[in-house]
Amino acid sequence: MLRLYDYLPSGNGYKIRLALARLALPYELVEVDIHKAETRTPEFLRRNPIGRVPVLELEDGTPLAESNAILWYLAEDTTLAPRGRLARAETLRWMFFEQYCHEPNIAVARFWKHYVPELSPLQKLDLPERMKKGYAALDVMERALARPFLVDGRFGVADISLYAYTHVAEEGGFELGRYPAIRAWLGRVAAEPGHVTIDQRPASARRAS
Amino acid sequence: MLRLYDYLPSGNGYKIRLALARLALPYELVEVDIHKAETRTPEFLRRNPIGRVPVLELEDGTPLAESNAILWYLAEDTTLAPRGRLARAETLRWMFFEQYCHEPNIAVARFWKHYVPELSPLQKLDLPERMKKGYAALDVMERALARPFLVDGRFGVADISLYAYTHVAEEGGFELGRYPAIRAWLGRVAAEPGHVTIDQRPASARRAS
Repeated sequence: MLRLYDYLPSGNGYKIRLALARLALPYELVEVDIHKAETRTPEFLRRNPIGRVPVLELEDGTPLAESNAILWYLAEDTTLAPRGRLARAETLRWMFFEQYCHEPNIAVARFWKHYVPELSPLQKLDLPERMKKGYAALDVMERALARPFLVDGRFGVADISLYAYTHVAEEGGFELGRYPAIRAWLGRVAAEPGHVTIDQRPASARRAS
Repeated sequence: MLRLYDYLPSGNGYKIRLALARLALPYELVEVDIHKAETRTPEFLRRNPIGRVPVLELEDGTPLAESNAILWYLAEDTTLAPRGRLARAETLRWMFFEQYCHEPNIAVARFWKHYVPELSPLQKLDLPERMKKGYAALDVMERALARPFLVDGRFGVADISLYAYTHVAEEGGFELGRYPAIRAWLGRVAAEPGHVTIDQRPASARRAS
């Protein structure tokens, strides 16, 4: 069985849980507490040398890391995969945008506001910059979402990738009220069959030993 | 003919120039001056709404953005593409690592040191953090490069993606002397047939009008 090492509030991990649920793939969830440095143990670093969740362990024990690379792996030959060379490039464009322009601002602001007891002087000075860049990323999405989904009018891995942290952006202090197209898209994604929420723990869940 | 909007010192742009040269694909290079905000004009933003080089315009005028998405597009069905599902996931893992752990630290430190006349208070406070994280990314690469190339022992787009800013890391103040495996790999990449350097201007080059 597939095994997912993950931390429930992580949007990067949620991408994988959402794809697995949509594809009806059974898996074991092993919950890792990132606040107790459980991703920095020698055992975990053998799975992912950068010490981050999610990691998906394949049936033969091969560990896959980087949420968007795992998404790509899971989507191959399924309805979640882009069809055609140009759609693949467009999908990857959104996924690299997610990791470069969106996650480092929206996810990081959310993490600092919710999970860090006291910000460092650097974080305090940096937060307004991250908010500004996070809003710029949302502006780009708002204009793109005149269409129903991000690529080719079909729900796919680009949508899963960007849904993960966009749908909790308000936890980072981002007001989504000013983004009607994004809010309509969030609703369309959540209405897709097989949807699960970020805090939904599958029956297979256990704590890392 | 393919048309590449690019800025010569950009490592992200160099990835595309290197792939195009390796694939012997002719293209027109349109040089854009990022310091004169030429990537923020309405015309440029129609090509890439996040206002960054590189942008590759296909024969029919379709613009592709995000360096690693463009690399993927160019590599399909060539010797630069990973072979097999696991190799594709591993290649994307390295490319997302590049955009999340490597470029924001190594390329940004290089940019701040070489192209920004005076750092802001935030940048000054942030630089040591970026240096630390940049070294952490190089540490991960050093351990991985016990093998000749990053994925499956074959030169491919993961190598091109990470070569771009690693080979100029010293311009960002990163000492590569302590990384023998990285230095040997840099040598292997530069020795591949069809290699071009970052400052090599193709005959087709012209300035954006």
